[in-house]
Amino acid sequence: MPHQTVALTLAYEGTSFLGWQRQKEGRTVQATLEKALSQIFQRKIQAAGSARTDSGVHAEGQVASCRLPAALSLPALKKALNATLPEDLVVRSVRKVPKGFHARFSARAKSYRYTLLNQKTRPVFDRERVVHVPVPLNLKAMRTAARCFTGRHDFKAFQSSGSRASSSTRKLTRFSVISQGARIRIEAQGNGFLYHMVRRMVGLLIEVGKGRISPSTAADLLRGKPGPIAPTAPAKGLCLVRVHYPKEAL
Amino acid sequence: MPHQTVALTLAYEGTSFLGWQRQKEGRTVQATLEKALSQIFQRKIQAAGSARTDSGVHAEGQVASCRLPAALSLPALKKALNATLPEDLVVRSVRKVPKGFHARFSARAKSYRYTLLNQKTRPVFDRERVVHVPVPLNLKAMRTAARCFTGRHDFKAFQSSGSRASSSTRKLTRFSVISQGARIRIEAQGNGFLYHMVRRMVGLLIEVGKGRISPSTAADLLRGKPGPIAPTAPAKGLCLVRVHYPKEAL
Repeated sequence: MPHQTVALTLAYEGTSFLGWQRQKEGRTVQATLEKALSQIFQRKIQAAGSARTDSGVHAEGQVASCRLPAALSLPALKKALNATLPEDLVVRSVRKVPKGFHARFSARAKSYRYTLLNQKTRPVFDRERVVHVPVPLNLKAMRTAARCFTGRHDFKAFQSSGSRASSSTRKLTRFSVISQGARIRIEAQGNGFLYHMVRRMVGLLIEVGKGRISPSTAADLLRGKPGPIAPTAPAKGLCLVRVHYPKEAL
Repeated sequence: MPHQTVALTLAYEGTSFLGWQRQKEGRTVQATLEKALSQIFQRKIQAAGSARTDSGVHAEGQVASCRLPAALSLPALKKALNATLPEDLVVRSVRKVPKGFHARFSARAKSYRYTLLNQKTRPVFDRERVVHVPVPLNLKAMRTAARCFTGRHDFKAFQSSGSRASSSTRKLTRFSVISQGARIRIEAQGNGFLYHMVRRMVGLLIEVGKGRISPSTAADLLRGKPGPIAPTAPAKGLCLVRVHYPKEAL
């Protein structure tokens, strides 16, 4: 049977997943997706993800690539997948891509969003998607610290051990702090992110916002100066919004 | 000890509650709130709600009234309650009200919102708060049907059996169909609502939107003409947004 390479855009609520990557035990996005694909095509199918989101991290636009028997039209495939997948995981779009396409290696950039709720009262409806900070945050200080993150830097100070990257230099094309009512959204776009990098940058920003760490610490840490270590911000505030591919890859 | 009458504004995700009203068994909002209050004040405390929201119905602005020992300041009471209540129930505000205030009997009007997601792909993040309609809805027809609901009418045809109201005449000051991207919000405001009334009106609108029922049916039903019975729309799309009180009651 002829095969085709397909890119799936996925949204999931990370709360009940142990992250993207298949593991020996436990419910993961990759294993759940592969199981649905294998069920539909009645053979073992593997899917590659653009990023290994951590346990509790959400996605609005994760991308997975896989080689599939060309037995179903793309709309039929989408329908079959969404009828098979559990309710916290959905396929938003399906497209045919060139054979060499790989969700991770073909990616040019990724966009993440981290959401804080900065008000006294705790959240109810989106309690699994925002991180509640009940004390007032100094937005101006947070923005001052955030500004230095854009550009090409060695983000060594913002990776957690367990990172397998050979270089810790990354280029961020965007790192913005947007306030909307009580909600503070931190939007990051870059050509790659180290393990825990966004969560550690946000963790620092929260401490800066609370006035516990000086905004200049961000630049110091990027320059390799030793500095205070802020707690890694919780997973549930993070969402993989979009994966960007060069036109020629698609 | 001196007592005070207090009005609490509550938000809750109705998904894991068997509705507002205390029952012999099962988790309800009223019982959960009363338990927290009784724990804080170390005595049995009862709370009256403005409306008995059904199982699965949400609230952003439910109001409960209760008589409490004046042992805590209002901010301290709010803090103690939010530290005691489970994460799907929160007190948004606490205020002292005159002794005669009653969340239900003092209410002048209520506002509800019903949310539909009208797109092919099913929702993920707010799957417990919106009702997914995958086939295209005719908004114009829905609006035509919706228009006749505003004003004073006998809503007998839109109540479910089990309603205990002596009269089925109600006055709606608002009944709007608002579209925002794939989301359709139906906003209803009135001096009172019969059992299942909003959900039955929305159920009719959905059938009208699908082209299965003529928009004029709404007016016919209000005039007492027998007509097709649309399915009651699911509870999870409904949210009690606000309860309105006359100034003198507060």
